[in-house]
Amino acid sequence: MNIGILGTGTVGETIATALIDRRHHVMIGSRQGGGEKALAWVKKAGKNAQEGTFDTAAQYGELLFICLNGEHALRALEMVAPEHVAGKIVVDVTNPLDFTYGMPPRVLEEYSAVSLGERIQQALPTAHVVKALNTVTAALMVDARKVAKGEHTLFLCGNDKDAKNKVAHFLADNFYWKGDHLIDLGGIAASRVVEGLVPLWVQLWQSLGTPMFNFRVVQ
Amino acid sequence: MNIGILGTGTVGETIATALIDRRHHVMIGSRQGGGEKALAWVKKAGKNAQEGTFDTAAQYGELLFICLNGEHALRALEMVAPEHVAGKIVVDVTNPLDFTYGMPPRVLEEYSAVSLGERIQQALPTAHVVKALNTVTAALMVDARKVAKGEHTLFLCGNDKDAKNKVAHFLADNFYWKGDHLIDLGGIAASRVVEGLVPLWVQLWQSLGTPMFNFRVVQ
Repeated sequence: MNIGILGTGTVGETIATALIDRRHHVMIGSRQGGGEKALAWVKKAGKNAQEGTFDTAAQYGELLFICLNGEHALRALEMVAPEHVAGKIVVDVTNPLDFTYGMPPRVLEEYSAVSLGERIQQALPTAHVVKALNTVTAALMVDARKVAKGEHTLFLCGNDKDAKNKVAHFLADNFYWKGDHLIDLGGIAASRVVEGLVPLWVQLWQSLGTPMFNFRVVQ
Repeated sequence: MNIGILGTGTVGETIATALIDRRHHVMIGSRQGGGEKALAWVKKAGKNAQEGTFDTAAQYGELLFICLNGEHALRALEMVAPEHVAGKIVVDVTNPLDFTYGMPPRVLEEYSAVSLGERIQQALPTAHVVKALNTVTAALMVDARKVAKGEHTLFLCGNDKDAKNKVAHFLADNFYWKGDHLIDLGGIAASRVVEGLVPLWVQLWQSLGTPMFNFRVVQ
């Protein structure tokens, strides 16, 4: 499968590398393309790896992952041509965190009422945006087995049921997430509550001394 | 032990009833005292139960629980004389939720930067405020065994280590919370991140169809 990853930070690179390992074809996109970091990754990742701009990565992918810094994500998406995302599934991994007031971080004020997930769906109206993976550390996103044998919860939300189903299967097949631990929270408006969980996640990282943990919803 | 409960809603009454069952002496406090609901509870709860105003309940208790509606909590606390809470441990169970924009709720805008837990500590500077129990449904607050045999997480925060320790022991002894599932998130400023979890909790209640669940932090 051809997959486009928007963002070349830790999250983008971790997902891109994992997808190359699972024998997908991956293009990572950055603002201008051709940066040192992107080129180094392509060299390391091998023949199925490419790099380009946000727009060329979006065009390349049948499936897209948005792994941008939450603060700049919407501006980055302005560089993507609408026809390059039309009808595609876009997994939104972003978090709109504000560290300027110290720890624990807050959700950026501009996204406290209308979440970043909703704004991304508004910015890409012809795409099917699914919010997922934003509540765990990058290494766990791509291999759920690394904590508690995969017995922990991932939240999904998005307006298109079929897109959510496809993402759920993709995560199970590629990243070892167990289907019975995926919880569908409803439409993309529920992004607000999963983005709202992340300040607690950051605080727990400090308290536990490791990012290798997750929440399991138990009944 | 003499315990004061501020608030006579579901949470206050559930905690008060549980504490009577554990053979404590309990006074529930309401705005004016003498209300129908409070009197009915006293009659049902028996000889160790009393009711009064917010101020008399605060005076009565060696340990206090704040179970007020988050929106009105600070105004209610203005009715409590500072000397009636001085040096006491105050467990803050409140949540500042805003349902006016529909589901899922938001955190009330006025508490998004400085949490309600912090504001309560500021309002009662001589008390030791410990934020706890606000992330689970009332029936589970008072008996952790009702979900997953008690194998799930409760978050505590507060500025006074000794007060947090005492609350942890109280919750273990009276409400069956397991010590190794209590996570100390640090000072009362961490209230922001636990209050921020509750909109997700409300959304999960809708998705799961029951409030009898909790999060377990797994590593």
